Amino acid sequence: MIDFDFINPTRIIFGKGKENEVGNIIAEYGFKRVLVVYGGNSTKKSGLYDRVIARLDEKGIFHCELGGITPNPELKFVIEGRKIARENKIDMILAVGGGSVIDTSKAVAASYYYSGDPFDFNLKKVTPDRTIRVGVILTISSAGSESSDSCVITNPETKRKQGFNHWRNRPLFAIENPELTYSVSKYQTAIGTADIMMHSMERYFNFSEENQLCDDLALAVVKNAMISGKNSVQNPTNYEARGQMMLASSLAHDGLTSIGKVSQFVVHPLEHAVSGYRPDVPHGAGIAICYLGWAKYVYKQDLPKFARLSRYLFNIDVEDDEKAAIIGIEAMRDFYLSIGLPTRLSEFGITESDLPILADLATGNGTRVIGRCPQSLDKKDVEAIYRLCL
Amino acid sequence: MIDFDFINPTRIIFGKGKENEVGNIIAEYGFKRVLVVYGGNSTKKSGLYDRVIARLDEKGIFHCELGGITPNPELKFVIEGRKIARENKIDMILAVGGGSVIDTSKAVAASYYYSGDPFDFNLKKVTPDRTIRVGVILTISSAGSESSDSCVITNPETKRKQGFNHWRNRPLFAIENPELTYSVSKYQTAIGTADIMMHSMERYFNFSEENQLCDDLALAVVKNAMISGKNSVQNPTNYEARGQMMLASSLAHDGLTSIGKVSQFVVHPLEHAVSGYRPDVPHGAGIAICYLGWAKYVYKQDLPKFARLSRYLFNIDVEDDEKAAIIGIEAMRDFYLSIGLPTRLSEFGITESDLPILADLATGNGTRVIGRCPQSLDKKDVEAIYRLCL
Repeated sequence: MIDFDFINPTRIIFGKGKENEVGNIIAEYGFKRVLVVYGGNSTKKSGLYDRVIARLDEKGIFHCELGGITPNPELKFVIEGRKIARENKIDMILAVGGGSVIDTSKAVAASYYYSGDPFDFNLKKVTPDRTIRVGVILTISSAGSESSDSCVITNPETKRKQGFNHWRNRPLFAIENPELTYSVSKYQTAIGTADIMMHSMERYFNFSEENQLCDDLALAVVKNAMISGKNSVQNPTNYEARGQMMLASSLAHDGLTSIGKVSQFVVHPLEHAVSGYRPDVPHGAGIAICYLGWAKYVYKQDLPKFARLSRYLFNIDVEDDEKAAIIGIEAMRDFYLSIGLPTRLSEFGITESDLPILADLATGNGTRVIGRCPQSLDKKDVEAIYRLCL
Repeated sequence: MIDFDFINPTRIIFGKGKENEVGNIIAEYGFKRVLVVYGGNSTKKSGLYDRVIARLDEKGIFHCELGGITPNPELKFVIEGRKIARENKIDMILAVGGGSVIDTSKAVAASYYYSGDPFDFNLKKVTPDRTIRVGVILTISSAGSESSDSCVITNPETKRKQGFNHWRNRPLFAIENPELTYSVSKYQTAIGTADIMMHSMERYFNFSEENQLCDDLALAVVKNAMISGKNSVQNPTNYEARGQMMLASSLAHDGLTSIGKVSQFVVHPLEHAVSGYRPDVPHGAGIAICYLGWAKYVYKQDLPKFARLSRYLFNIDVEDDEKAAIIGIEAMRDFYLSIGLPTRLSEFGITESDLPILADLATGNGTRVIGRCPQSLDKKDVEAIYRLCL
C-alpha cells in the first residue's frame, strides 16, 4: 500500500422524490442565491426544472440560470457561467443533470474567485484555494462526477478534454432519485454502464501490490454495475436496478477503490482520442471498444489479475490463468453486445488509415506514453491496440 | 433499496510516520488549543505520546490532556474530560488510541456546549447540534470509531454500554500509520479481527432486498479483514497486513456498506450482554462466540445469504444452500480457532445456570426483542442461542 490522503465529504441523499426537498436542503445550509445549471430540453420537458424552481421559490431562494450545457462541455460555458454567477453574487451552484452539467458547475465554482482563465485549473497552472459549493440533482448514472473530485472541460482550441482533480471539486451534496433516470434511453443506459464499469476497472488494474481490499471493492462495483446496468436496459423503470446503477456510478468514481494504490487511467485516454477525433463515438461506447483492444494487447503482462477479474465477474471455472483471462475478455465482449453496445471501431467507419492519426492524438504525436499498468504504452503500442479495436 | 442520507467527511491520512505530521495538520485547520486524550501507559512507553506533544509544541499549539481511558469507557471520563476542556477553552480534541479513547473524545466533543448530563446523548434525550471537532491518531485496528458516526459509553449505574449515532460524531481526520499497530499483541489482533469482521457481517445480514452492491462490498471487507488479520497475527510487523487491517477497520464500520438497507445489529447486542455480565470476556472474543451460536440458530431462515457468505469467504463449492451454509459456519469456527480465538462461552467458565441471566440482560428482562434479520429474537430465542454458544 502506498500513502494516501483521502476525503469524500459529499452527502448523498437517496430516494424517491428526494429532489423535491432541494429547497429545504439548500435553506438548511443557509444559502440564499443559487445558480441553476442544466443541460438540454429534457430537464424542462420532464417537469424537473419547474419543480426545482418552485422549491427554490417556496423558500425565497434567489436563482439565476445557465442552461443548454452540451456533452463534453467547452470552456465557453464556464466563462459564461462565471459571468452570470458574479453578476448575481450567488453563494452556491445547483447542477441539475449528469457529468457535463456537474463538471461545468465545478469549473464555475473553482474559478468564481479566480481572476485568470478558468482553464488554468485544467492546465494545472493553479489549484483552487477557495471555491463556492456545488449541489447536484443527478439525472443520469454514468460519469460519477456527483461525488468525485474531478472536473473535465474540453479545450476549445485543441478540442482535447482536460481534467483536474481536487478535493474542493467534490459536491456538497448529491440528490439521487433513481426515478429521474427512468427516461434515460436504453442505448444511453448501456453507455453509462460501460462508463461506470470502466471507472472501477481502471482502478482495479492500477498497481496495487498487496492492496487486495480495494481491488475486491472495485470488482464488486463492476459486477453490480453490470447486473444493474443490464437490468436497467431491459426494464428502464426497474427502481432497484436504476438505484443500484446510481449508487455504482457514485462509488465507481469517488476514488475510494484506488486509495493506497498508484492511480493512473489507461483506457480513458485511449478513448478520449477516439471521441475527440470522432465526436459521434459516445464516450461509453468508445470505452467498451478500447477496453477490449487494450485487454487483448496487455493481458499477458498480468495474467493473475485478468484471470481474477474473469473468475469474479463471469464465474469462469478454469484453473489456468491464461485461459481464464482469454475467456474473460470474450465474456466481456459478449456482455457489451448483450446490452447493445458496439465493440469495434469499424462500426463507426473508422479504418486502418485512421489509426496513425488516433495514435498521434492519444500520445501527443508520440511525445507521451500512456499508463504503466501492466505496461506503459508508446505510440507504436497504442496504434497496435487501436488495430485490435477495428 | 430504502432511502438514505449518508455523509462520511472523515479525512484519512494513511502511511508510515504520518503521526509526525499531526502538528502541521492541526495548524493548517487553524486550531490552537487541543485536548489530547489517550489510554494506558503504552502510548507513553512507546514514545508516541512524547512525539505527538513535541509536534504540537513545535507549532505553538496549546495542549491539555485526559489520560488513562480504559476499555468500555465510563461516563466519569467524559465528565472529567468536559471539565478539563472547558477550563482550558480548547477548540479541538486529539484522540490518540483506539475505540475507547475515540468514543470518549466524541462524547466530550458532543457535550462541550451542552449544559446537561453527557449521557443524555446516549439516552437519545437530545441530539448534538453543535460540537467541537475530533482528530484521531489510530493505534489499534478494531472498533472502527476512527471514521464512524457512533459513540458508545458505558452507563455507570447499569453497567450497560449505550451508543448513539450522529454524523457530527465523525472525526475530522484519522491518521493511520500501520506501524503504530505492530505492538498490538497477537490475541488483541485476533480480537480486533473478529470485531472488524462482525461490523461488516452485521451489515451484510441486514435486510437488503435488492441491495447486492452493498452486500458485496461488505463481504469484500470481511474477506480482507480475515486475510490481513490472520497475516497480522502470524507476522505482527507485516506492514501490508497491518495496513489492510487498518483500512478494513475504518471501512467496516463507517456505514457505507449498509446504505440503502435496514441497519440493525444482532450479534453485537448478544455480545454486549456477555461482556457486561463477565467483563473478562473481551468484546471481539465474545463476538466470535456469539456469531457462531446465532448463525447456528438462524441460518435456516435465510439459507441463500448464509450460503453466499460461505461460498465467497471459504470458496465452498457446494450447490446445496443448506450444506454450504452449515460448512460455512464450521469454516468460520475453524478460522476463529486458527487465529487463537475462543469459540465457546464455557472457556470463560460460563455454564447453563448463567444463561437465563444473560438472556435477561440482552432483552431487558424480556421487554425487548433483538434484531429482525433474518428473524427477531425474544428472550427464549436468545437463551437458546447462548446455549448453542456453551
